[in-house]
Amino acid sequence: MTTLREQMVALGDRAVAAARRLAGAETDRKNAALQAMARSLRRCQAEILTANRRDIEAGRAAGLNRALLDRLSLNESRIEAMAGGIEEVAALRDPVGATIAAWERPNGLKIRKIRVPIGVIAVIYEARPNVTADAAALCLKSSNAVILRGGREALHSNRAISDVMRASLEGAGLPADAILFVDTPEREAVRELVQLVGRVDLVIPRGGEGLIQAVTEMARVPVIKHYKGVCHVYVDEAADLEMALTIAENAKCQRPGVCNAMECLLVHQAVASRFLPRLAERLTSQGCRLKGDPAARAIVAAMEPATEADWSTEYLDLILNVRVVGSVDEAITHIERYGSHHSDAIVTENLETAERFTRGVDSAAVYVNASTRFTDGGEFGMGAEMGISTDKIHARGPMGLEELTSYKYVVWGNGQIRC
Amino acid sequence: MTTLREQMVALGDRAVAAARRLAGAETDRKNAALQAMARSLRRCQAEILTANRRDIEAGRAAGLNRALLDRLSLNESRIEAMAGGIEEVAALRDPVGATIAAWERPNGLKIRKIRVPIGVIAVIYEARPNVTADAAALCLKSSNAVILRGGREALHSNRAISDVMRASLEGAGLPADAILFVDTPEREAVRELVQLVGRVDLVIPRGGEGLIQAVTEMARVPVIKHYKGVCHVYVDEAADLEMALTIAENAKCQRPGVCNAMECLLVHQAVASRFLPRLAERLTSQGCRLKGDPAARAIVAAMEPATEADWSTEYLDLILNVRVVGSVDEAITHIERYGSHHSDAIVTENLETAERFTRGVDSAAVYVNASTRFTDGGEFGMGAEMGISTDKIHARGPMGLEELTSYKYVVWGNGQIRC
Repeated sequence: MTTLREQMVALGDRAVAAARRLAGAETDRKNAALQAMARSLRRCQAEILTANRRDIEAGRAAGLNRALLDRLSLNESRIEAMAGGIEEVAALRDPVGATIAAWERPNGLKIRKIRVPIGVIAVIYEARPNVTADAAALCLKSSNAVILRGGREALHSNRAISDVMRASLEGAGLPADAILFVDTPEREAVRELVQLVGRVDLVIPRGGEGLIQAVTEMARVPVIKHYKGVCHVYVDEAADLEMALTIAENAKCQRPGVCNAMECLLVHQAVASRFLPRLAERLTSQGCRLKGDPAARAIVAAMEPATEADWSTEYLDLILNVRVVGSVDEAITHIERYGSHHSDAIVTENLETAERFTRGVDSAAVYVNASTRFTDGGEFGMGAEMGISTDKIHARGPMGLEELTSYKYVVWGNGQIRC
Repeated sequence: MTTLREQMVALGDRAVAAARRLAGAETDRKNAALQAMARSLRRCQAEILTANRRDIEAGRAAGLNRALLDRLSLNESRIEAMAGGIEEVAALRDPVGATIAAWERPNGLKIRKIRVPIGVIAVIYEARPNVTADAAALCLKSSNAVILRGGREALHSNRAISDVMRASLEGAGLPADAILFVDTPEREAVRELVQLVGRVDLVIPRGGEGLIQAVTEMARVPVIKHYKGVCHVYVDEAADLEMALTIAENAKCQRPGVCNAMECLLVHQAVASRFLPRLAERLTSQGCRLKGDPAARAIVAAMEPATEADWSTEYLDLILNVRVVGSVDEAITHIERYGSHHSDAIVTENLETAERFTRGVDSAAVYVNASTRFTDGGEFGMGAEMGISTDKIHARGPMGLEELTSYKYVVWGNGQIRC
């Protein structure tokens, strides 16, 4: 009987060997594997749904709530969405081998900075089987081997999906071990996995705050976090209030459960009394609750009082904090203090104020006169994404294929030595 | 009496506040501060040397060896070198605010990817006072606040240098807290520092393997490592042997104590019997010891036998491992197994073999027909450097000003909302 550590080390070794083969894989071959995966997922739908039913039944027996059961559930259209997503990744440009920069030194050395895969990426996620397909496809296209560790609740579904994908890799002449799946249910497997220094090059946790914090604390290898979004819209005194209303409504209500939805609206005191009643009317009609600071509640009495803790809360729901501020600087200070450095917007017609805001707000994406909801790989034109990084190291904002690469310097000379 | 943790948290808060002010600092003001630092270091030479003498005397009393005492020692020319280094940083282009990429989306959103500082960087190093000046200058130019933690042996020297630099910041109207110095000697201060999630954005350990491993294991914030170099030169069957000799001599002997010096030479069996006797003669005459595998020793009997552990040893000294290989693939396999992914070179006139090598070797810098010694920010034309990263996340190879930045997306619209 091997220990968990030994099992994870063995898995890591297989991933490293696969990553080495994958580093030199031609684009056509990777795309062929991706196309085969999409076809196989559709063809093996029945087996995948059978496996998924086992997870659902176990989840019901374990008392999972309805939201979790919904995320866990697969059906025909969700499998089709997975397959379609893989085909989209196949259609994206291969980042590996691209020249990022090239220059020549006075001594004749020709230096090229070239995109290369990171190597082995571990993705730790919750009970969402579609992440299995998304993450594996993005890692394969960027020539990284991936070790997948999904939530235990989705064990059978994830195993079925990854089996299908592994078979497609082999069919295309690529190592099946480029996609590895941790199928031991023990929690401790995650700890071992994120401490595989020298075997795992990067860990990407995807899920709730608890998961991300736990992974970050245990990890001994680099982690890129896809953290919460406490996003703001600041309505400046020079705002087009009609535009501000439309943006606020979109940022809050179009899809409240995602990380780039607005959680807090800040409004300049000069326009607050004109703007807030209209905002309240518009959002309340959509079923949104409003919580305000005293100045906001003095204008719209129906708002609940916002507590200190509310300002840094990610509701992921139809609830909005509202605060009246005296200046753009006060707005920036609020955002820096309570925000999550994810996505924040200003609505203003004043160019100077807009620039002050974009310089002062230290977030992955800062918007002028647009909704925060655009922070997304697809909306940015990057194609599929692994998630949205709120870290500042390596990747920030939407993390697409390029963000799953590293680089190396290739230097050609004709005998140069250093003096 | 505050705890160490409280002290470090307070230091982190001061750094965060300074980083926020620094993010918007004009290039001219940063350069003025750097120029003032250089002048002040020269002017305060006597005080700095007095402080350094205290460290030296304490070090002698504590029985530090001669190499450590040498690294610790300052004199007029070393202070001049520090001042000159700071002036060089002042002359470099400011990376902050540069547009990395810009594009427009079909819906009219204008997306710009802009270089921004990382925020607060902690630099953990050993008893080399010059790192204090180098690291502080690079962080200031890239608008990062820095928390310096040097070896306890250099406490007085480092405090004197950082006091001078902090005074220059204030003189230029920048926050003195942009350069903070941990002056408690307790080892535990490092642990607290590298666990300041939310206050410290990046940790850069610089020093020996022990220090780097300890920091990496303790850290809860991202770490970029400047690790050891087990660098190789592979002499191919199609090599110009005269060039190979020159490159091997340079890579091994020009400065053996640095991370980009060669530790192991691999030679194709087809040229080994012609090449190795000449190599042995050339290197032995420079005082270099050679250790070989059986095939190499069959050609040069005077070589000592190399042990398995030797292949992954960073000697930092005039000792060279030598191995005969049957092909470029065998060379690549050796390098991937025993190397440190730092800098590796091939000497060959065969273009195809060269490309096979540059693709197959997964190192920060891969050379064709040039010495490994060129892996260096100055030699790459990047100006000063913080060190050489052997990591693959964020920065790889020489880490200059750009590598000390992150980015953000600034998105301008005219009312766009997401559908």
